[in-house]
Amino acid sequence: MSNIQVNFNFTGYTLEELLQHTDVTTDVHKELEMEAREDGNFLGWLHLPSTYIKTEEYKKIKESAEKIRKDSDVLLVIGIGGSYLGARAVIEALHPTYFGPTDKKETQVIFVGNNLAPNYINDVINYVADKDFSINVISKSGTTTEPAIAFRIFKEIMYQKYDIKEARERIYVTTDAKKGALKKLADSDKYTTFVIPDNVGGRFSVLTPVGLLPIAVSGVNIDELMNGAIYAEEKYNDSLLQYNDCYQYAVLRNLYYDNGKNMEILATYEPRMHYFAEWWKQLFGESEGKENKGLFPVSVEFTTDLHSLGQYIQEGQRIMFETVLNFAKTETDITIRPDEDNLDNLNYLAGKKLSYVNQKAMEGTVTAHADGGVPNIIINIRELNAKNIGELIYFFEKACATSAKLLEVDPFNQPGVEKYKTNMFKLLKKPGYEDK
Amino acid sequence: MSNIQVNFNFTGYTLEELLQHTDVTTDVHKELEMEAREDGNFLGWLHLPSTYIKTEEYKKIKESAEKIRKDSDVLLVIGIGGSYLGARAVIEALHPTYFGPTDKKETQVIFVGNNLAPNYINDVINYVADKDFSINVISKSGTTTEPAIAFRIFKEIMYQKYDIKEARERIYVTTDAKKGALKKLADSDKYTTFVIPDNVGGRFSVLTPVGLLPIAVSGVNIDELMNGAIYAEEKYNDSLLQYNDCYQYAVLRNLYYDNGKNMEILATYEPRMHYFAEWWKQLFGESEGKENKGLFPVSVEFTTDLHSLGQYIQEGQRIMFETVLNFAKTETDITIRPDEDNLDNLNYLAGKKLSYVNQKAMEGTVTAHADGGVPNIIINIRELNAKNIGELIYFFEKACATSAKLLEVDPFNQPGVEKYKTNMFKLLKKPGYEDK
Repeated sequence: MSNIQVNFNFTGYTLEELLQHTDVTTDVHKELEMEAREDGNFLGWLHLPSTYIKTEEYKKIKESAEKIRKDSDVLLVIGIGGSYLGARAVIEALHPTYFGPTDKKETQVIFVGNNLAPNYINDVINYVADKDFSINVISKSGTTTEPAIAFRIFKEIMYQKYDIKEARERIYVTTDAKKGALKKLADSDKYTTFVIPDNVGGRFSVLTPVGLLPIAVSGVNIDELMNGAIYAEEKYNDSLLQYNDCYQYAVLRNLYYDNGKNMEILATYEPRMHYFAEWWKQLFGESEGKENKGLFPVSVEFTTDLHSLGQYIQEGQRIMFETVLNFAKTETDITIRPDEDNLDNLNYLAGKKLSYVNQKAMEGTVTAHADGGVPNIIINIRELNAKNIGELIYFFEKACATSAKLLEVDPFNQPGVEKYKTNMFKLLKKPGYEDK
Repeated sequence: MSNIQVNFNFTGYTLEELLQHTDVTTDVHKELEMEAREDGNFLGWLHLPSTYIKTEEYKKIKESAEKIRKDSDVLLVIGIGGSYLGARAVIEALHPTYFGPTDKKETQVIFVGNNLAPNYINDVINYVADKDFSINVISKSGTTTEPAIAFRIFKEIMYQKYDIKEARERIYVTTDAKKGALKKLADSDKYTTFVIPDNVGGRFSVLTPVGLLPIAVSGVNIDELMNGAIYAEEKYNDSLLQYNDCYQYAVLRNLYYDNGKNMEILATYEPRMHYFAEWWKQLFGESEGKENKGLFPVSVEFTTDLHSLGQYIQEGQRIMFETVLNFAKTETDITIRPDEDNLDNLNYLAGKKLSYVNQKAMEGTVTAHADGGVPNIIINIRELNAKNIGELIYFFEKACATSAKLLEVDPFNQPGVEKYKTNMFKLLKKPGYEDK
């Protein structure tokens, strides 16, 4: 049995209907493979897992992570967009929900430089004041406004707290191999550096040093994560739609789009997956949302949001379909106990596992929404662990590239992101932007 | 100058165009006032702030909050939907972003019973194991599955940890005045009780004991919060559209809806407002998402999400408008320092406040999105504090009721929420549901 499998029961389509699109997905498959072999494209992620794990840099990530885990209470990860969402997604998916420190001594990973909010940055400054910390700054150019400002601030704090030698040893730079402001600074100040490959865009970069260093620092076994991705690299390399769940998902979402749906809702029943959904939203939103096209990506956490957006999904405008991440097994469980008085009427559940109740809530919701005109794609995942998260990341990356190709947009650019920046620079009177 | 004010500059409409809808909003105004005077309606929230603050129960909330703040490290708030989102929204808006304990000794408010996820509940169990805690369980009936299961679990832990007298004193019940499972239990076990008014629905209940007790425990000054709401109750009681920003917002969103927009994106530039946006999503989604109608509510946090959903908003399908919460002043600030080397090219910002940069990012984004075909309603708020959050809550509650009336749906029911429950109960073989 497969670790990850797409279930068609509530999609409104049969596999046979889907297979009519076999030729077009085979063409996209060939196109992706061909582009991956050429220079100047952004398909470096396609066959990266199986090769990257053998590199010296991969070893260096593990060594640096060990050092940070030993000498730091906190790792500050400075990055925005693809330079933070992937790491945060994996770290939160594979750790207990954080309420505060526990007995287990772990290095806490805190993300900063992904906004311009003074309160947030001051909250981080106050929090690390009495703690040992390291910095991992992640930026291709080193001049992106949000991370650059945060790095200025926290670099200064670092140099005030530690002597120059130690400060330099506590700064880890993930950037371009050769050029850019951050590379130049790293060379002159002798920071440890890691490379953002030229042919991997930000939102596809979680399985490069961009994501792997923070993930390893958090205590996740990155070998298992990479092994899941390597498994997926092989498994989803089947050119035939019939055998490729990843392509089937890509076709399904385009069929809904062609039939007038304009948003896809990713639903999870596991709160730890909150940031995985945020990562997924960037991946699909930035890859497809262009030329006035694309499905708008939304996420919900059930059953929580069944008492919020659930009403709309059940009975509002019929403009969406749902994709449900369903984990068959949970790491921990709870058995519901009987109660003598049974005032809450829950004794019918006595002896049942909570995971069972959550599963039935999922099944009941899928049928309720499908009956209400919202088709559901269920993605069954055997268990929430590092290996399966690695597979799931690759699954969605490849599905996204395929889906964007089917939509006939470039999956790897993001021209619209520049527009707010240009306006902002003009308002801020940045040299060169005064008269734009 | 007003604390809260709707800015029309990027809406695509002028005030004059809006004022053509004066008669219809005046009618809705009269209808809401009339319904509020009749029994059996859900308009209790309309004139509640000014009367509730004078009650004995309001005093009792403050007394209970003081006791909990003295004897508890953690308050577990057990509730789902409207029984948790309002409190969480206000608490997170008015506190530093939480990374872990600080020197300031505060009672930590943790929300549970809003999902069926075993990992989450076990994470809470482990976290409170070595801490003194109290429980505030919030449920009209006492039999809603998610909170009822959580209350069974944590009540048992409470009775194991403390002797029966102390355990009973640590449980606070917010429920119906007379009937229901929770009321019955509270009476027999002598728990402290607070009343959920019959004429206030869950999503309109944050300024009742439902929200006020947890909010007071967190250390927020609830007098200020209520004073903001009382001010709003007076200010937004003007029947004339011309003078009522709340009605103007309601009309604007319906104009967009009538012109084919099908989602509203609430954008904030302050991470502390994350759960406020979640509260807003329930308020509007449940009130309007019915009869195949309504705007789907979405939220984004900028500038973070400008590097995620920003691309789609700028260039994807033109199906949305944005409502921007703009705080003119931040609690704290940071001055950007000059750097000798200036490798990051940030010296043009040296001496500038970060709040200024964030403000210019907002202005640049609003014009970029408006130019790209996404109209923007800016809601200017003078400052993020308890009083203004109180006003903003009332502003959105009244705007929501008005907007739903303009859309010709019942703002106060949520028939669709039952459907997943019925299916789930059938699958779980709950007595009475076996053959539904």
